[in-house]
Amino acid sequence: MEKFSYLDNAATTKVFDDVFDFMKQKNEELFFNPSSSYMPSINVKKQLNLARENITQKLGGKNGRLTFTSSATESNNMVFNGFNLRPGQVVLISKGEHPSVFYAAHALEQKGVIVKEVNLDKNGKVDFEHFKTLIDDNVVLISVIHVSNETGAINDIKCLCEYAKKINPNVIFHSDGVQAFGKIQFSVRDLGVDLYTISSHKLYAPRGIAGIWIKNSIKIHPYLLGGGQEDGIRSSTENVLGALAFSYVLDKVFVNINENYNRVIDYKNCFIKKLMASNISQFLKINSSEDASPYILSLTFDKIKGEVLENMLDRYNIYISTGSACSSKKAGNRTLEAMGKGESDVIGSVRVSFSPYLDYDFDYIVSKFEECVLRLENNVKR
Amino acid sequence: MEKFSYLDNAATTKVFDDVFDFMKQKNEELFFNPSSSYMPSINVKKQLNLARENITQKLGGKNGRLTFTSSATESNNMVFNGFNLRPGQVVLISKGEHPSVFYAAHALEQKGVIVKEVNLDKNGKVDFEHFKTLIDDNVVLISVIHVSNETGAINDIKCLCEYAKKINPNVIFHSDGVQAFGKIQFSVRDLGVDLYTISSHKLYAPRGIAGIWIKNSIKIHPYLLGGGQEDGIRSSTENVLGALAFSYVLDKVFVNINENYNRVIDYKNCFIKKLMASNISQFLKINSSEDASPYILSLTFDKIKGEVLENMLDRYNIYISTGSACSSKKAGNRTLEAMGKGESDVIGSVRVSFSPYLDYDFDYIVSKFEECVLRLENNVKR
Repeated sequence: MEKFSYLDNAATTKVFDDVFDFMKQKNEELFFNPSSSYMPSINVKKQLNLARENITQKLGGKNGRLTFTSSATESNNMVFNGFNLRPGQVVLISKGEHPSVFYAAHALEQKGVIVKEVNLDKNGKVDFEHFKTLIDDNVVLISVIHVSNETGAINDIKCLCEYAKKINPNVIFHSDGVQAFGKIQFSVRDLGVDLYTISSHKLYAPRGIAGIWIKNSIKIHPYLLGGGQEDGIRSSTENVLGALAFSYVLDKVFVNINENYNRVIDYKNCFIKKLMASNISQFLKINSSEDASPYILSLTFDKIKGEVLENMLDRYNIYISTGSACSSKKAGNRTLEAMGKGESDVIGSVRVSFSPYLDYDFDYIVSKFEECVLRLENNVKR
Repeated sequence: MEKFSYLDNAATTKVFDDVFDFMKQKNEELFFNPSSSYMPSINVKKQLNLARENITQKLGGKNGRLTFTSSATESNNMVFNGFNLRPGQVVLISKGEHPSVFYAAHALEQKGVIVKEVNLDKNGKVDFEHFKTLIDDNVVLISVIHVSNETGAINDIKCLCEYAKKINPNVIFHSDGVQAFGKIQFSVRDLGVDLYTISSHKLYAPRGIAGIWIKNSIKIHPYLLGGGQEDGIRSSTENVLGALAFSYVLDKVFVNINENYNRVIDYKNCFIKKLMASNISQFLKINSSEDASPYILSLTFDKIKGEVLENMLDRYNIYISTGSACSSKKAGNRTLEAMGKGESDVIGSVRVSFSPYLDYDFDYIVSKFEECVLRLENNVKR
C-alpha cells in the first residue's frame, strides 16, 4: 500500500521505476546525435525510428507517421499553426477541449480565422446534432478531444470524422488523444482522423517527450524551425532517450491494456458503491456518464466547494483535483459548464482519476471523503 | 580510455551516468504535477523554482528569470515569435547563427519583416564596423550567437549590445549561448542582453529540457498556449525531472568550469601540435582563431572533402563532424562562407569538439588523421 492515495493520474503519472535504469543503459551506446553521420549516430537514428514505428503500430496508424514533440501542448499548438489558415476560414473545436487546443485555436482569431465551438450534451460528449449544423465548406480544421480530461466522456470520433468528411472531403480532422491512448482500445486508421496527439507523461513515461501522428496525405507546416529534424516538421536535436523510454513503457502498458481497464473499472465501481453506501450519498452527484472512460470520474458534492474539499483531503494524503491541472487555476470549468451544469455544481466538482498501477484503500478514502464532506455540509447549514 | 574517440561534443554530450539515478530518486517524491494544488505538488513547484534559481544564478541573471523550454531550438523560435513584429520592422542577425535562429528569423519575412545579416570577420566574429552601419531606429530585435557552433569564435556580446542600445535604446538583444554557457565565464547581466538561450544536452544533462533567460523588463508573447505554466510564457506540464537534472549537472560542471577550460585548451593545443608535427601539416589550415573557445576547432585539409574524411575516421571509431549536426546535411557552411573561406576550404572543413570529461589518445587520433588525409591527398594527385 502506498503512503498516499494518488487519485490525480489524469494530471500526471509516476514514471515507472525501471525507466531510469533503461535510459541509463541506453545512454551508453545511444547518446550520439542522430543527425550526425558516423556509424553510432546512424544506429541512434535507427533506434529512434524503431521506437517511432512501435508507437505508430500501437496507434494503429501505418497510414501515417508519428512526429516526436516535447509535449501534447506542443503537438496541439503545432496543429493550429500548421495550415496557414486565412481570414474567414473556420476552425471548429468542441466546448470540451483541453486549454492547449482552446487557446491555440482562439489565437487564430487575431488572423481573422473564425473559431466555432460545438456544444456538449449532458453526458459531456459532442452534441452530434449541433455538430452537423456547423459543418460546411468553410470549415478547414476540426479538433475534438477523444476522451475528456475533465469527465472521461468518450467522443465518437469515427462518427464525427466520417460525417464531416462526407460533407467536406477537404476538412482536416484532429483529435487530442492524451487521455485515450494506452487506456481505451482504438486505431487512428479506424477513427479516420488526419492528426492525433499523444502524451508520454500521462502513461508512466518521462516528460519532455510526446507526439503528433500525421496521416501520410497531410502536409503540415513545421512549428519549430532549425536543423530540419523529424523530416523537417520539428527541428531540435531529437530526444532519443525520451522517445525510447516512451516506447519501452508503452510495451508494458499495452500488454495489459484490457487488464488495466478492468482493474480501473473495479476501482471506479468500488469507489462509487462505497460513496453511495456512506453518509454523504445524499449530497453526491456523478457528472461523468456511465459509458465514460473509467480512468476519470467527475463528482459534485452539493453546496460545497471542490477546492475546499481538495484541500481538506490533502491533509489525509488523498490527492484529487478540482479539474485538470491545466485548467484548475482558471475560474470555472468550461467542460462542465458546456454540459449544462449550474454554477454551484461546477464549483462543487472534483475530479478523481485512477491508475491501475496503484493500490487504493477505498474504505479509508471514502471514510475521509465522508468526514470532510459532512464537516463542510454542516458548515453550510450553520 | 574510451572505446572510441568522441570529438563531436558540440553536437551533443553523453549524459552523466549518475543523472539517471538522481532522476529515479527524485521521481519518488516529485512526480506530481506542479500545477496541482495539494501539498506534494506545492513542494514540486518549489523544487522546480529552486532549480530555476540555481541556473539563473549560474547565468548571472538575477535581473531576469529563466523560462524552461524543451530545447534551445524552441527557445530561439520563441524569441522570433515573441514580439509581434510588424511589416517594415528590422530584425538583425549575424551570418554565423545556428539554423534555428537563421530560419526562425527569415520566416518573419513572410510577414513583411526585414531581416538583415551582419557580416563576420575573418576570425568568425561579428564585423563590428558593418554592425554599426546596420543599427538604426528600425531595428527592433538583434540576435547574435555568443560562441559560434562552427568555429568557437566568441562574439563580444557586451560591446555589440552596448553599441546597439546606445543608438536605439528600445532594441531587444538576444544571444544564443548554447556553446558558451558552462564553458566560458560570463554573466548575462554584464553582457547586457535581454534574452539568452541555453541548452541542457550540450552539458551532460538530458534532452527535452532547455531554457530562455528573459530580463525582467522584457514582455515576451507566449509561444506554446495552454494551461498557462511558466508564468503563462510556456504552457505544458513542466518537465520537472529534466529541470532538476539540468540544475544538478550544472552544479558539477560549474565547480570545475576553469579546470575544464584548461583541460580543453590542453587537448586543443596537443591535437594541433601533433598535427603540425605530422606528415599532413602542409595540408592543414586552422579556421578557428586563436582566441576562440577551445571547445570547438574548425580545420580544413587542403583539396579533400570533410565529409569523406569524417567517414574514413569513423572506421577507426574517431567521431568528428563536417559542421554542426544541425547544418551538416545542408550544402555548404554559412559561417565559414561568411568568414570569406573559398568553396574548397568550406567543403574540406571538419569540426572537432572536445569534452573535458573524456580522455583522448592524440597519438592514435593524429596517426589516423595522417593515414586518412594522406590517402585522400594521394587520390587527389592521381
